[in-house]
Amino acid sequence: MAAVIPLSLQAEQAALRIMARCDSLAELSETPGQLTRVYLSAQHMQANRRVGEWMTEAGMTTWQDSVGNICGRYEGLDPQAPALLLGSHLDSVRNAGRYDGPLGVLTAIEVVAYLSAQGIRLPMAVEIVGFADEEGTRFGITLLGSRGLTGSWPQHWLQCRDAQGVTVAEAMLGLGMNPIDILSAQRGINDYCAYLELHIEQGPCLQAADLPLGVVSAINGARRLNCRFTGHAGHAGTVPMGQRQDALAAAAEWMLAIETTTSARGHNLVATVGQIESFPGAVNVIPGEVKLTLDVRGPEDENLCALLASLLQQANAIAVRRGLTFDAEQFYGIKATACDPALQQRLANSVAALQGESMSLPSGAGHDAIAIAERWPVGMLFVRCKDGISHHPDESVTTRDVAYATQAYINTVLSFNQ
Amino acid sequence: MAAVIPLSLQAEQAALRIMARCDSLAELSETPGQLTRVYLSAQHMQANRRVGEWMTEAGMTTWQDSVGNICGRYEGLDPQAPALLLGSHLDSVRNAGRYDGPLGVLTAIEVVAYLSAQGIRLPMAVEIVGFADEEGTRFGITLLGSRGLTGSWPQHWLQCRDAQGVTVAEAMLGLGMNPIDILSAQRGINDYCAYLELHIEQGPCLQAADLPLGVVSAINGARRLNCRFTGHAGHAGTVPMGQRQDALAAAAEWMLAIETTTSARGHNLVATVGQIESFPGAVNVIPGEVKLTLDVRGPEDENLCALLASLLQQANAIAVRRGLTFDAEQFYGIKATACDPALQQRLANSVAALQGESMSLPSGAGHDAIAIAERWPVGMLFVRCKDGISHHPDESVTTRDVAYATQAYINTVLSFNQ
Repeated sequence: MAAVIPLSLQAEQAALRIMARCDSLAELSETPGQLTRVYLSAQHMQANRRVGEWMTEAGMTTWQDSVGNICGRYEGLDPQAPALLLGSHLDSVRNAGRYDGPLGVLTAIEVVAYLSAQGIRLPMAVEIVGFADEEGTRFGITLLGSRGLTGSWPQHWLQCRDAQGVTVAEAMLGLGMNPIDILSAQRGINDYCAYLELHIEQGPCLQAADLPLGVVSAINGARRLNCRFTGHAGHAGTVPMGQRQDALAAAAEWMLAIETTTSARGHNLVATVGQIESFPGAVNVIPGEVKLTLDVRGPEDENLCALLASLLQQANAIAVRRGLTFDAEQFYGIKATACDPALQQRLANSVAALQGESMSLPSGAGHDAIAIAERWPVGMLFVRCKDGISHHPDESVTTRDVAYATQAYINTVLSFNQ
Repeated sequence: MAAVIPLSLQAEQAALRIMARCDSLAELSETPGQLTRVYLSAQHMQANRRVGEWMTEAGMTTWQDSVGNICGRYEGLDPQAPALLLGSHLDSVRNAGRYDGPLGVLTAIEVVAYLSAQGIRLPMAVEIVGFADEEGTRFGITLLGSRGLTGSWPQHWLQCRDAQGVTVAEAMLGLGMNPIDILSAQRGINDYCAYLELHIEQGPCLQAADLPLGVVSAINGARRLNCRFTGHAGHAGTVPMGQRQDALAAAAEWMLAIETTTSARGHNLVATVGQIESFPGAVNVIPGEVKLTLDVRGPEDENLCALLASLLQQANAIAVRRGLTFDAEQFYGIKATACDPALQQRLANSVAALQGESMSLPSGAGHDAIAIAERWPVGMLFVRCKDGISHHPDESVTTRDVAYATQAYINTVLSFNQ
């Protein structure tokens, strides 16, 4: 990596603050010695207050909206102009890392702090949202924070229960929030001109490319299926190889085909068999049935659908040839979210100026940008994380990469100053 | 199948009795509506008494030996001549079929009943043993009955416990048997000249060949291994196909190689992966570790060892090529047991005379003959069972096949009458 523009002192100092604040937020956890911060918990409220104070220090007016997002606004020259929205989430998975979510909120605050310190007012306001729930850890429903802004909470979400049987509505009431008021978090279509989100990559691509930053082309669409081969169980000693209807051998052939086909198709497609179980599952019995999951993802729905169709066709062909049956049922699907080309270009310009080149890559994980993209153009900046590890205490970024990210983020926001 | 010699009326009537007696023994079960008859249970003792009565009716003197085998002797012309031993076992797996074991004992009784009714005395006595425990259902140790005759009970067997914590010794004492007397079940090397065992095939080969009977060439040797591929877990969405160290994809490649290699080698070798587990085992996580079992069997130890070495070598090569590690540990092994060529020939002559041809096949399952072969020549006659199903209530043989089996068994025993 050739650094084309040297890092500014401001970016380096900001990066140190961001790292310290990530550590500070990591202390707000319901599990001692681990980081677990879920929606509508005491720690969530503490995090909102702490982030709100940092927003205020950066020169923003702040408020907590009706779904629990912490929001800040740095006014622009024209208060009526659609604002530039920056954000990410403050909630976590259980036993989480400290950068997934908070890094994007805290870097955004440094962007505004820079504008404020330099006395720069953009033509439009800059707003920041620390989203209340992206991971869905507590209630099993995701993107609650960003769907508050889009006004797309389904009616039943208020009645979803956590593991202790507490509903979302009850949890809100317990914190003095009013569940019948959630629609007031919704923002008008003309409130925003664009949404930018900075996030750790949660994958190994930037590390493999030896680059601190990358620009997201799209957030992968995904399909998840429960699949099953049904053959015939038999005695592992008495049934000759040629007379078997071994469900696991069929599954093995298919799993290899999944890997080969998906790799050959390219288009940033990925496919994973994560769970597998054989029945009856005894060392000395030929499996008569195998259940396995298939997870396929890709940045373009068309390529994703074509891959999935091919994989299912191959499974059926394998089953038929072996005298077995195959069936599959999709239990989860989400369309791909394309990032706005103009926002990608702004981000790519800032990134290329800093690190000599910009890398475009899809996001394999979901983000608040999925919900926001339903109403506003979105762009995402990825920061390299060590070995692609995320959702784990070992999640790690370097201060230097965060300084690059801050600088690129500032420059991208400054590109709106015309 | 061309019947060369028509079935005798005696064989047909014997087959009806055998089927009725299999039904009668199937009533002796500790689980209502199922068949479960384990070693040293009340039902075991009932079965021994009932079988002993049928032996007596057939003209035999009977006794229960010190490990719980029910034994009978039909004297020969020379009481000092090594006897011909016939037998199989009377215990069962849980929720068993009714033919695995008892069919061999009851058919042997009909052979003696025939000799007795015809007033035939062979040069040597004919003994029958209903072995007390072949399956190992209760104490997890197998071939207890036949190892009583060979005198090869390991010291620790008396202290093995069942699921309720009862030891073998305690169970014996509870039935009035004397555990310190088990060595008295041992028979002298000159007590027997040969052992013959009739058993259902427990596999599909005779059905596939459209033949009622087959002659066993050898009882398969077996090796069982716990195997493991270790790669690197990762996010199913964020790690590109080319950067994965997917333990399940490696296992899939190996499982396919196991099937292909084993089929190609021939020699009646079989290999089975019966259990598989992926870790962490989530739909959206690339498996970092896969544990799986390998069961390989074959009638010749040399071919079995060569196959196993090849499979393990391939597993290592797959792991190395993919940047993973592979390890395997054998937790069970038993050598192949060759059947005596002369006894095979006697059986084959009888079978071919009845059904026009004799089929030679290995036994994939274990039998009492494994233990007996340590001291005496063994031969085994297999009877076709429906769809190869065994260890299951659906285990099934036809009365007509049992008539063929009885006739062949009688003719084989008569071949010793010279």
